Amino acid sequence: MTRYILRVECPDATGLIFKITKVIFDHGLNILSNGEFVYAKRSRFFLRAELEGQCDTEVISEQLRDTLPEAASVTIGVSRTKDVVLLVTRESHCLGDLLLRHSAGEFSGHIHAVVSNRPDLGDLVERFDVPFHCIPHEGVDRDEHESRVLETLDPYPVDYLVLAKYMRILSADFVGQFLGRMVNIHHSFLPAFVGENPYGQAFQRGVKIIGATAHFVTDDLDEGPIIAQNVIPVDHTHSAADMAQAGRDVEKSVLARALKLVLEERVFISGNRTIIFD
Amino acid sequence: MTRYILRVECPDATGLIFKITKVIFDHGLNILSNGEFVYAKRSRFFLRAELEGQCDTEVISEQLRDTLPEAASVTIGVSRTKDVVLLVTRESHCLGDLLLRHSAGEFSGHIHAVVSNRPDLGDLVERFDVPFHCIPHEGVDRDEHESRVLETLDPYPVDYLVLAKYMRILSADFVGQFLGRMVNIHHSFLPAFVGENPYGQAFQRGVKIIGATAHFVTDDLDEGPIIAQNVIPVDHTHSAADMAQAGRDVEKSVLARALKLVLEERVFISGNRTIIFD
Amino acid sequence: MTRYILRVECPDATGLIFKITKVIFDHGLNILSNGEFVYAKRSRFFLRAELEGQCDTEVISEQLRDTLPEAASVTIGVSRTKDVVLLVTRESHCLGDLLLRHSAGEFSGHIHAVVSNRPDLGDLVERFDVPFHCIPHEGVDRDEHESRVLETLDPYPVDYLVLAKYMRILSADFVGQFLGRMVNIHHSFLPAFVGENPYGQAFQRGVKIIGATAHFVTDDLDEGPIIAQNVIPVDHTHSAADMAQAGRDVEKSVLARALKLVLEERVFISGNRTIIFD
Amino acid sequence: MTRYILRVECPDATGLIFKITKVIFDHGLNILSNGEFVYAKRSRFFLRAELEGQCDTEVISEQLRDTLPEAASVTIGVSRTKDVVLLVTRESHCLGDLLLRHSAGEFSGHIHAVVSNRPDLGDLVERFDVPFHCIPHEGVDRDEHESRVLETLDPYPVDYLVLAKYMRILSADFVGQFLGRMVNIHHSFLPAFVGENPYGQAFQRGVKIIGATAHFVTDDLDEGPIIAQNVIPVDHTHSAADMAQAGRDVEKSVLARALKLVLEERVFISGNRTIIFD
Repeated sequence: MTRYILRVECPDATGLIFKITKVIFDHGLNILSNGEFVYAKRSRFFLRAELEGQCDTEVISEQLRDTLPEAASVTIGVSRTKDVVLLVTRESHCLGDLLLRHSAGEFSGHIHAVVSNRPDLGDLVERFDVPFHCIPHEGVDRDEHESRVLETLDPYPVDYLVLAKYMRILSADFVGQFLGRMVNIHHSFLPAFVGENPYGQAFQRGVKIIGATAHFVTDDLDEGPIIAQNVIPVDHTHSAADMAQAGRDVEKSVLARALKLVLEERVFISGNRTIIFD
Repeated sequence: MTRYILRVECPDATGLIFKITKVIFDHGLNILSNGEFVYAKRSRFFLRAELEGQCDTEVISEQLRDTLPEAASVTIGVSRTKDVVLLVTRESHCLGDLLLRHSAGEFSGHIHAVVSNRPDLGDLVERFDVPFHCIPHEGVDRDEHESRVLETLDPYPVDYLVLAKYMRILSADFVGQFLGRMVNIHHSFLPAFVGENPYGQAFQRGVKIIGATAHFVTDDLDEGPIIAQNVIPVDHTHSAADMAQAGRDVEKSVLARALKLVLEERVFISGNRTIIFD
Repeated sequence: MTRYILRVECPDATGLIFKITKVIFDHGLNILSNGEFVYAKRSRFFLRAELEGQCDTEVISEQLRDTLPEAASVTIGVSRTKDVVLLVTRESHCLGDLLLRHSAGEFSGHIHAVVSNRPDLGDLVERFDVPFHCIPHEGVDRDEHESRVLETLDPYPVDYLVLAKYMRILSADFVGQFLGRMVNIHHSFLPAFVGENPYGQAFQRGVKIIGATAHFVTDDLDEGPIIAQNVIPVDHTHSAADMAQAGRDVEKSVLARALKLVLEERVFISGNRTIIFD
Repeated sequence: MTRYILRVECPDATGLIFKITKVIFDHGLNILSNGEFVYAKRSRFFLRAELEGQCDTEVISEQLRDTLPEAASVTIGVSRTKDVVLLVTRESHCLGDLLLRHSAGEFSGHIHAVVSNRPDLGDLVERFDVPFHCIPHEGVDRDEHESRVLETLDPYPVDYLVLAKYMRILSADFVGQFLGRMVNIHHSFLPAFVGENPYGQAFQRGVKIIGATAHFVTDDLDEGPIIAQNVIPVDHTHSAADMAQAGRDVEKSVLARALKLVLEERVFISGNRTIIFD
């Protein structure tokens, strides 16, 4: 018995679930779990199913495409551990948490390598027997740096690239190569602060909660579709440094949660929103 | 166009979603939202769908029962505001919150009446133009009191009976008449405290969070299937009275959340668990 | 035995607590609770104490001012229920919650009246036997409208003015008359949205949490010192209307919490921050 | 300039803060932060202050004891990193999180060693260059095992012993040697479950939140004074294994929070409660 994940997105229409499950049924597959959602505003239909049995995924794909509206996107594949590479800079909290989960068998992906623009985190990564590559950004322009990063990634299979506190802005070109496959984490504030030293600003403003947002990376910096968010309470006794520590704590748990959803193929992107089957 | 809610529960089997959606499709109904769940341990299948169109619900029911496993429970009906009666005793926090939501058009049910074993809350109820019935428990035994309560309920349609801080223990007989249709709210502590004065005990023990649990009422007092839970932080500066206030605040929000789920027919009971399509 | 609340703010210096508590001790007062905080960045000292006993507050004030740095702000008064007037427009969720708490004896202030620029909430307010004044804004300019509101407030004692979803922008002049004595509540988003229809924007952006912020009103609209904040989780299945409902639920609990802190004189304002002794 | 932490506990009386701060003032010490609390029910007074300056702590201690009620407990010492040893068994989530914080300089203690009754976690500990000692419990009785553990601890300075998922029950004798200096973490449920397989029970009961409690260890297993608690939401789609994963996530953040409070000497124990100055 093999496990498959089926994902469908198409314009909404009557009878979609019936048509999809008919194909599944005809192939004798068992549905372990199934989720559908109609994004009414855009009249889009989404379905994610976990199936069990034995089938030819190409045949099923074709049959589904034949029966569904023309613009349907259909993917079906054997459920498998996703291939992941992490990009980091200097902060260890997200990286360390992911390496720990990975080494404890509690991470839904396989971390093949960690790439950084600085050497600082090499020691930590190597403690976990994961290859570490330092690609310094000093003295090279962004294009050159990015092409070196891409070269470094080349030998690794990469389903998802995770920016686990990678502090360099990526070019539209780089982002374009990983669209929908690159996840970032950043702190979030109520109200939002722009510019330098956000924790200093949050302190000045006396915020009472510090948040974190995990999102897909798009051209629009820090503005891609949100996958997960959470907050942690703070108060006036917290210094800016204490707030930054609170931020790190919430960032690491939000990133881990977002990656679980993404790596289990539970997340669809539609416009600037995510549809999540959890 | 009419809206319907379809609910199915049956032993799990292959092809259930296909068979159900085929019937829906054959009747030309549109699926607005759909949720399924397989409770693997018990091999039970659950489905809730919101449908739109025009159909004969009896015909559909029959066709579904014919196509599904023998023991299937199928209900389909026009989506409608549920009829609710509240039982209360002396505390106003849950009652007041529900009356406010009701009068603001934000409550998914129609509150026909409030019944109490004490007169205290009559004023509040009448401010909202809802009938209030005081059925004192003094001087009568439990059976007699319950039969008077039942008599009072008699003229009202009752889909659900809500114990909004009703402090009398109900007989198995009374409970049996509202099985799966009676919701209760109570405070919850980590660890749990039994016996008198739970907030006093929680204070002595120095708990750091106060919780609330909304659940269906079964014979086993306070132990029925859980619908919603939440907590609120407290600390050593909270007196037992402050903790009770925190408890009231979390109780009222948890009860409102649970009732929204129940009144929209999103909740199934299976064994001592709930399956919730939210 | 009388209860007093003492509040001190002054430039930080060595020996402040000693000097203050010496005066308290010399007058034979008992300290029920005491909190101090040094805002290191600004080198400011804050103290709030609840005292019990019998004293001449003017004498104590004077002695404290004599012993403390020149710029010290010292207030000591008998602990008393604060006088409150609410300003509202059309939404009932915060207003209703405060009226319920007020009528249940769980509100730390006395609500003398509710003033609105619209008639909609009159019914609700009158159910609770609180005077309601509708001062329509149509056909009058802002200055004129505000001076009518002020006239309406005139007969009432007002320690604090609470904007419980008052949807008019107030002039700097009006704000100036209630500086540090006017509390507002508004929804908050991560990221923040500016402009029209924030819930529509939050929906488009697919946010996963909806927040609320209670703050003092200053000239800088919605940017005054924050008193309390909280969030509530949402997901892609929430429509913009569902998100607005979630927003109302979190707004009402955050405003209630903020008012408890303010009315018990637990909040200091320093720059754009609050120092809160809870 | 040296930093000191002063902690005082004594029967409540008038003038305590004045008397204590007088001594501090007379020695020319600056108060960086100060917290007091009167546990009214027990008429006990607690104070924790962070001081800055230069002083002879023995002289101050003596002066404070002279001026305070007879039963006063007074400790004052240079603020320093605490010495910690961890006891673990097989689960890595709390251990890993603490080792990461430790290696990132974000842990308020120094972890000298990790002791386990099983070999499983040796690899992980050694990755962080911390000594690991496996003291198997097989084939030896509890007394013998505990005396071997104590022998292993002997060369290390131990302010606090942290049970980071140590799954052996400790004897009253062992507990007695670390009273008020041993912190444990365990999962918590609403309602509480006793006996085997709590996550299986929580699943059967359909709980909607999973909690964790960090507490001091006393003779009364899992019933010592609570330091920190938190919860994480779950639902019917979570298997017992998913609930256990949620439990691990909340356990690790609660233990880290509790240890920060304890290691910074912010926690007093009074009866079965904690008084925490955070």
